[in-house]
Amino acid sequence: MADLPKSISIHEEGPREGFQIERGPIPTARKIELIEALSETGLKQITIASFVNPKKVPSMADAEDIVRGFQPKSGVEYRALWLNEQGFERARAVSGGKLTLEAKIGIYASEKFSMRNNNRTTAQEFEYAQNVVRRYKEHGISVNRASVSSAFGCNFQGDISTATVLDIFRRIFEIAEANALALKEISLADTMAWATPLSIKRTVGAIREKYPEMRLNLHLHNTRGMGIANAVAGLEMGVDMFDACVAGLGGCPFAGHKGAAGNICTEDLAFMCEEMGIETGLNLEKLIECAQLAEEIVGHPLPGSVMKGGSLKRLRHAHLQ
Amino acid sequence: MADLPKSISIHEEGPREGFQIERGPIPTARKIELIEALSETGLKQITIASFVNPKKVPSMADAEDIVRGFQPKSGVEYRALWLNEQGFERARAVSGGKLTLEAKIGIYASEKFSMRNNNRTTAQEFEYAQNVVRRYKEHGISVNRASVSSAFGCNFQGDISTATVLDIFRRIFEIAEANALALKEISLADTMAWATPLSIKRTVGAIREKYPEMRLNLHLHNTRGMGIANAVAGLEMGVDMFDACVAGLGGCPFAGHKGAAGNICTEDLAFMCEEMGIETGLNLEKLIECAQLAEEIVGHPLPGSVMKGGSLKRLRHAHLQ
Repeated sequence: MADLPKSISIHEEGPREGFQIERGPIPTARKIELIEALSETGLKQITIASFVNPKKVPSMADAEDIVRGFQPKSGVEYRALWLNEQGFERARAVSGGKLTLEAKIGIYASEKFSMRNNNRTTAQEFEYAQNVVRRYKEHGISVNRASVSSAFGCNFQGDISTATVLDIFRRIFEIAEANALALKEISLADTMAWATPLSIKRTVGAIREKYPEMRLNLHLHNTRGMGIANAVAGLEMGVDMFDACVAGLGGCPFAGHKGAAGNICTEDLAFMCEEMGIETGLNLEKLIECAQLAEEIVGHPLPGSVMKGGSLKRLRHAHLQ
Repeated sequence: MADLPKSISIHEEGPREGFQIERGPIPTARKIELIEALSETGLKQITIASFVNPKKVPSMADAEDIVRGFQPKSGVEYRALWLNEQGFERARAVSGGKLTLEAKIGIYASEKFSMRNNNRTTAQEFEYAQNVVRRYKEHGISVNRASVSSAFGCNFQGDISTATVLDIFRRIFEIAEANALALKEISLADTMAWATPLSIKRTVGAIREKYPEMRLNLHLHNTRGMGIANAVAGLEMGVDMFDACVAGLGGCPFAGHKGAAGNICTEDLAFMCEEMGIETGLNLEKLIECAQLAEEIVGHPLPGSVMKGGSLKRLRHAHLQ
């Protein structure tokens, strides 16, 4: 495990991924309560809302109210998701300096999923990317990241090869070059939990070889229980940036969201890294409190493990007394 | 990942670990139903009962009835657990050729846990091992395995060092040598889920170096969500034998068994291995059906993921049509 990074960044996606999938309406004030609690854990980046179609995702209809209402903490970057120009304009209009409006060029590796999610073919996705990049430049929004979703497989299309992923990144970097953008990060999302440690190593390895200067990010879903193992595979390939959701928010297999389990769990990943000597800058006990708060807010059990099993620091401390 | 084994054996512990921890009484017939369903999945070894004190573990008071009642399948080994000579005699008395009565020399790395679980100091544990080995020889029971429990840490004692584990194995092998036993397997149990992939690699690596001729087994609990990642670390160190529980039986964090989560989940491990090209000899779809049966029998959600997320073979098949 010589390649393990010394430290990693964990980007919290819980307030977005998590509250988005919940059926019961969650009061805006409670969403803000979690965002503000997460701000006290050492997290440096929190995605707090999605500016998506409120008819399709009614649970995110209060995106503007969330941004207006929360108290930002100095040193923490707050981000939001958008999938089209309308969403971007909404985020820009409400930000008031509270949101970090960095953009990415993101493409689905699966055309069938792109059609279902965004109603665009892959060709149309690239066309959109071309256009939106120009809009970002007009507004002085920096574009730092190339991102490929459903990068390991898709429930609607099947396996996704490393070659397909590399080809999409090649085309993204062509757009970046044509627009004089200096991308700094590459992100791979296992949107539908098809990855295993072996496919993570294969695809991340190929990308590292081709783009050695890029910082790598993984966005891993845990639907088939492989999330933390896939994160370890990423760590071993030098990945030092992970998306994660407190308490494993983003879908609870125990609440009828079958097959829609959320991202890897923030505090489980933080626990593992700290136990392995990889710095996260996070306060695990505070994260566990946030996970318990998240469970209380959604009103049903969430899949995180360390929030139930407990940290080891407490146990170690007890034996030293 | 060059060291990954070509095939692994998964030893099913669900009927023992799982039903042992359940509070509600489970009818013997339903336990047998699961055992017989598991026998049809390709599993070659199933632990079906514990011969332990029925006053302390009332949920296993029907161990004899289970053994008498189930229909063994040819080619499957059925095993039982015992912790003292009385338990061994009970297993021997009821076996009728249905149980494989192989024994092990097992020691807790944590003396405090040994005291709590067996009311014996480590010195007394070794003394017991000396004596019981002689009893096994009298009865012609083969002793193939050296086993260390709580090998990575203990809630009651704290961290367990690799040196401590190596020292216990040294003393176990002295007993084996003194009794002319040719041990073939070494098993490490992370009984209280203190391990991370790094500590797995460290301790398994040290053991492989010292005992290169021994086959290695891991018994991993998933209390802190590290189970599958720890299994991958084991696979990468050449471990090719794992204990596991269908549906993750053995404690459900969602049913009040806080911090008592069970073993790694049989079908999640099998799914990962098959996806990574490691043969398990198991029928994943049948295992998923067993996991659903187990959930129905215990009457509450169980933590397995693939039983909810589904296998990929089905999805792949759908796209080929």
